[in-house]
Amino acid sequence: MGRFAPSKSYVPVKESKYLFDKMSILGVGLIGGSLGLKCRTEGLVGEVVGVGRGLKNLQDALSIGAIDGYTHDPGEGVEGADLVVLATPVGAFGSMIERIAPNLKRGAVVTDVGSVKGAVVELLESRMPPGVFFVGGHPIAGKEDAGAAYSDPELFKGARCVLTPSAKTDETALEIVKHLWEKVGMRVTVMDPYRHDAVLAATSHLPQITASTLVNAFEELSSGLPEALDYFGSGFRDTTRVASSPSEMWRDICLYNKDEILNAVRVLQIKLKEMESLIDRGDGEALFGTFKGAKEFRDSLLSRAGEGG
Amino acid sequence: MGRFAPSKSYVPVKESKYLFDKMSILGVGLIGGSLGLKCRTEGLVGEVVGVGRGLKNLQDALSIGAIDGYTHDPGEGVEGADLVVLATPVGAFGSMIERIAPNLKRGAVVTDVGSVKGAVVELLESRMPPGVFFVGGHPIAGKEDAGAAYSDPELFKGARCVLTPSAKTDETALEIVKHLWEKVGMRVTVMDPYRHDAVLAATSHLPQITASTLVNAFEELSSGLPEALDYFGSGFRDTTRVASSPSEMWRDICLYNKDEILNAVRVLQIKLKEMESLIDRGDGEALFGTFKGAKEFRDSLLSRAGEGG
Repeated sequence: MGRFAPSKSYVPVKESKYLFDKMSILGVGLIGGSLGLKCRTEGLVGEVVGVGRGLKNLQDALSIGAIDGYTHDPGEGVEGADLVVLATPVGAFGSMIERIAPNLKRGAVVTDVGSVKGAVVELLESRMPPGVFFVGGHPIAGKEDAGAAYSDPELFKGARCVLTPSAKTDETALEIVKHLWEKVGMRVTVMDPYRHDAVLAATSHLPQITASTLVNAFEELSSGLPEALDYFGSGFRDTTRVASSPSEMWRDICLYNKDEILNAVRVLQIKLKEMESLIDRGDGEALFGTFKGAKEFRDSLLSRAGEGG
Repeated sequence: MGRFAPSKSYVPVKESKYLFDKMSILGVGLIGGSLGLKCRTEGLVGEVVGVGRGLKNLQDALSIGAIDGYTHDPGEGVEGADLVVLATPVGAFGSMIERIAPNLKRGAVVTDVGSVKGAVVELLESRMPPGVFFVGGHPIAGKEDAGAAYSDPELFKGARCVLTPSAKTDETALEIVKHLWEKVGMRVTVMDPYRHDAVLAATSHLPQITASTLVNAFEELSSGLPEALDYFGSGFRDTTRVASSPSEMWRDICLYNKDEILNAVRVLQIKLKEMESLIDRGDGEALFGTFKGAKEFRDSLLSRAGEGG
């Protein structure tokens, strides 16, 4: 592995006023659109090209100022780009890299925003052409709304971004990607790709699966109980909010982070079985302890987050 | 069962400017405190007496204007009251009615705000002294913060209140309680007590148990993965919000609505097992369908609620 030789555009102070002269965003959804919008607003990039399938979405992205132009052709889209951001659902990364590899500029940096890192980093590293540098990343930001139209330049502000270098990752490329996410407001940390996947299975993937499963259980319960459709309140609404997230993204996360997610789901099943047993036995003291333990642990997490900024 | 003969104070236009000359609230938590505050602000009541164990909480209630006075003695607290509102956790209703029964004024109306109705209505009806009228109720409002200090006069605005008359319920007393909740801004409906419990098991009790169980699962997962404590985001925060609700209340709900809750928990377990199996098999198509079904059902619920006001 040779050291990364930055192209001239990476030295903004001296030779370009931009962090990147040309950035290509593959998949202009909420994250891709928000990144483009923020980079253009802040003058961090000379040009942002959006690549996607849906014409309407690309036109939305253009009209709100998230991109300077677009194409449906990934190969064309990355032509001459200094930075390429893979922001499609994770499952499309494989075909995407096949299509862009021949057109990537020598010295280009490729990064991604996928919610799974272990399998993704292995896949993408194995497909990078010589002289192109890959850095795995996961900006932990989002909301349930999808599509460029929901782009928000402040989406990243104060949120965490995890970069997941491997033994093959070029250090300069890592610094460049770190600098980008810091510039759009994120708190960047570095973690092993598989460790990231275990952490996110617990913090994000399990809550998502729980929320979607709760909605599906509620649908079944309400089929014999139509009044239930009118009596859900803010508790149900919040507990299930993430179930309105894009389905394609979550399908791919379950496929690419299978082992860690299965482990987390099984811990949840055990805890649910314990809860069921306490209810069935009518064990008030243990029920109180279980609810109280959850309350105290959650409250401690929130105050920890508050203290940590 | 005789017809209810309203005491004079129930005819506000003619003989009193108040809906109730004296209201006693047993348990001045979020709901009790908010009710007192709203009634006093709106001039619906001549006097509100708060009854509770914690001195600090009662002092808070007094200082924010939720009550006119307080006592630790339930018997003393209900003396001369036209309306008595049981707003302690459900599990305390039995001992509460024992203590207040000898002091209830003939013609008084007793209602409650418990989240469980079948067992509660049976219990309280069986203990009402002659000439006192019980109406079961459940104002479906709340937030995770407990205690009088969090009282909010707008807590009830636009939310639903379910009244659960039985064959024994006096119709005039039902109208009186209905009028009260409407006056504080609620949309009041009437439902069979056990039907209410099935509906709430699906809409409220299952989400609560799910959220608390998810926190407990997360605690276990994070014990071997300390980074997880720093990487939870808004998804985890929302999915688990209700886990910060009062533990005593939820213990009692599980004890008093056991059968319906167990049924709901078992449906959730089945759905979770199905989800686990799809992830384990790596069945992308079925996973997509499951996430999409949940998303569409939830989105339809929200737009239904939006349309319904």
